[in-house]
Amino acid sequence: MNKNSIGIGLMGLGVIGGQVARVLLERGESLAEQVGRPVILRKIKVLEQDLSRPQAQEMEPYLLTTDEDDFFNTPGIDIIIELIGGEEPALDYQKKALLAGKHVITANKEVIAKHGAELVAMAQKQGISLSYEAAVGGGIPLIMPFKRDLVANEIKGIYAIINGTTNYILTRMSREGIDFASALKQAQQLGYAEADPKNDIEGIDSKYKLAILASLAFQSRIRPDDIYCEGVSRLSNRDFRYAKEMGYVIKLLAIAKQSDGFIEVRVHPVCLPEDDFLAKVDGVYNAIMVEGDLVGKITFLGEGAGPLPTSSAVVADVVQVARDIVLGAGCRPVKRPQLDKEIKKMSEIVTRYFIRMNIADSAGVLAQIARILGDNNISIASAIQKEADETTKTAEIVIMTHPSQEKGIIKAVDELNHLDAVKEVNNFIRVEV
Amino acid sequence: MNKNSIGIGLMGLGVIGGQVARVLLERGESLAEQVGRPVILRKIKVLEQDLSRPQAQEMEPYLLTTDEDDFFNTPGIDIIIELIGGEEPALDYQKKALLAGKHVITANKEVIAKHGAELVAMAQKQGISLSYEAAVGGGIPLIMPFKRDLVANEIKGIYAIINGTTNYILTRMSREGIDFASALKQAQQLGYAEADPKNDIEGIDSKYKLAILASLAFQSRIRPDDIYCEGVSRLSNRDFRYAKEMGYVIKLLAIAKQSDGFIEVRVHPVCLPEDDFLAKVDGVYNAIMVEGDLVGKITFLGEGAGPLPTSSAVVADVVQVARDIVLGAGCRPVKRPQLDKEIKKMSEIVTRYFIRMNIADSAGVLAQIARILGDNNISIASAIQKEADETTKTAEIVIMTHPSQEKGIIKAVDELNHLDAVKEVNNFIRVEV
Repeated sequence: MNKNSIGIGLMGLGVIGGQVARVLLERGESLAEQVGRPVILRKIKVLEQDLSRPQAQEMEPYLLTTDEDDFFNTPGIDIIIELIGGEEPALDYQKKALLAGKHVITANKEVIAKHGAELVAMAQKQGISLSYEAAVGGGIPLIMPFKRDLVANEIKGIYAIINGTTNYILTRMSREGIDFASALKQAQQLGYAEADPKNDIEGIDSKYKLAILASLAFQSRIRPDDIYCEGVSRLSNRDFRYAKEMGYVIKLLAIAKQSDGFIEVRVHPVCLPEDDFLAKVDGVYNAIMVEGDLVGKITFLGEGAGPLPTSSAVVADVVQVARDIVLGAGCRPVKRPQLDKEIKKMSEIVTRYFIRMNIADSAGVLAQIARILGDNNISIASAIQKEADETTKTAEIVIMTHPSQEKGIIKAVDELNHLDAVKEVNNFIRVEV
Repeated sequence: MNKNSIGIGLMGLGVIGGQVARVLLERGESLAEQVGRPVILRKIKVLEQDLSRPQAQEMEPYLLTTDEDDFFNTPGIDIIIELIGGEEPALDYQKKALLAGKHVITANKEVIAKHGAELVAMAQKQGISLSYEAAVGGGIPLIMPFKRDLVANEIKGIYAIINGTTNYILTRMSREGIDFASALKQAQQLGYAEADPKNDIEGIDSKYKLAILASLAFQSRIRPDDIYCEGVSRLSNRDFRYAKEMGYVIKLLAIAKQSDGFIEVRVHPVCLPEDDFLAKVDGVYNAIMVEGDLVGKITFLGEGAGPLPTSSAVVADVVQVARDIVLGAGCRPVKRPQLDKEIKKMSEIVTRYFIRMNIADSAGVLAQIARILGDNNISIASAIQKEADETTKTAEIVIMTHPSQEKGIIKAVDELNHLDAVKEVNNFIRVEV
């Protein structure tokens, strides 16, 4: 064995793992030139049932093992790439790798979002590195920009379309006026949504990614559970239609911002002014806007998932870690003070709100609605009332408020829902400008 | 003197230098925590006439010197930041710093574009680093993404709006239908264009930036003189009007791409389809789209200039270099093979073209034009002919071609200009899709 080479062990040989293996094998010469030493894929841990899959079939048989001990005991492995996904056994494997003194590279957003702080501490204790550029935004550089390129800034906020599946669904709903169920079905047929789409459509995937980015941006530990999370399944094509009439586009945003010394972290549908840059980001694209006090607003845009973009980020981490090994730099300790800022309660946040409701088509109803809003310190910026439905004797009204506090809105919506003249408050959507 | 601190020497105290000094002084504690050692600004080289300026007045007098030898002999300087701008004496100072074993950080696009290869070689020989993140795109991370985040990719192309001044001018021309001279004047009044705007409006600034990016992207030495460069001063409000009628927006693009084993590098106005992402980037914003074979198309968007964004990039370089010093990593040798690909002659490039001309309003003229285009292998995709001007007996015609070779266009335009029935070919603009 060439002692001067950098050895790689890969865990997981799904579509992502298969693509990473392919890049490592096919671009070995270029990688070696960039690192200064050969970068050699030495062993791949696969599941028994995956041995018959095409990715496994294209690998040299000696590279494959289904045995965990065989994998961890393979000599000459410096870096372990974990591409299994999910919380366990991925977390267990990462810990095992770190304890064995192996640098770890992963694309696992769930493990990093939930256990990143603990894993980083383990790595630093061992003098090795934990890298996870691919965990957020596919091949779009995001982790390293926070660790390196933006370190002079105080980060004011992050506003991100960070889940391609939901952005695809919302784009279809917006453009074609179709309902959520149809858009989801089409996304599933095209392979943009999984058979069980919960993680994407309920915003859980976005929440993990936001936890990772916000923790870096604010130098505070933001746990997934700290993040208010609301998905897109309640959105109706009527919301899109009225929002459009008022000059807005609806997107699922992951938002992290500092205000009044607190941090706000939340994932939910948002009405964005149609000329806002994020409003123009359609389909499976991701876009992450970061505002720093020096750099101003910068936006990163690209495909946020898929085997090719993800392999770009994973192999970039491999090159970076391998260069550090060659330099003898060991762990690249990104020392950043932990500020542990307090997280604002969701009930305390202030935005504008878009409220859509069905009301009885009778005199005095608007006055009753206005009174309830006023009693809760909510003032109306604009409203659209649609012609009444003759059969049901109901009308639809959409109200855009001035900036109001969430707790006032929640209380007002509850009161409105108890009003005889209000058939239903169908939805309320926060507005960001 | 604290031997454990990292000492900084700053050359140049204009608006950029002043802001960088301010960040180094005001954020010293945060920088020290991120680096692991204090980062101390030890000396600033200023010009005699700059001593009375506000930036100099806010500095402690002991920091300032007008004497070059005094500056270079200041003990305890590890990193020299050159923010003088222009080719000389900046180049001379950078060399002097490198020869003295000081890490160099600069925002100087001209020096890096023209002499980067030589300076990098000097730095590597000395085991130190040369960093220039701020030279392109202000605070938008661009240099490090090419050196680190995209290294697994073969870069297919770069399409960039990389000069805020011209983008501001073209945005005004496009939105308000005003002519170039008025838009330039307004840009000057607002401080977006300099009194002598040549470097911006003739595309020279974009050319320097493209030389830097393309050299990194293609691992080849691209000199500014290798780049075809055409500015925006020939653009008329009529070009914008007709382009818009055809569904296009005009932008000054810096383009570098690989095709048929050659590299194309060029800066010129471009017609972009109005739904293209770059077409939507307005005002002083910069946007850089990079296409890699793995990562797909990713775009970086932000303010490309100004003291605050530039200080973000310069201080990020300071932190990176200082961390490397602490790690004992010395020079971070970004070893990348030099491929030295051949540059395609401008006459060989193929794009679609937008051609606007004044013609005599008489029978048979269109046939003559079509024949000349046909003889030069140019086929017409669409055309707009405007009603004739009764007084001058001329009409205006705009032709959009199918993909054609530049040399055919040049020859056809020359032949058209010699045609009696053609009063003038007013402009031709390349089209990118």
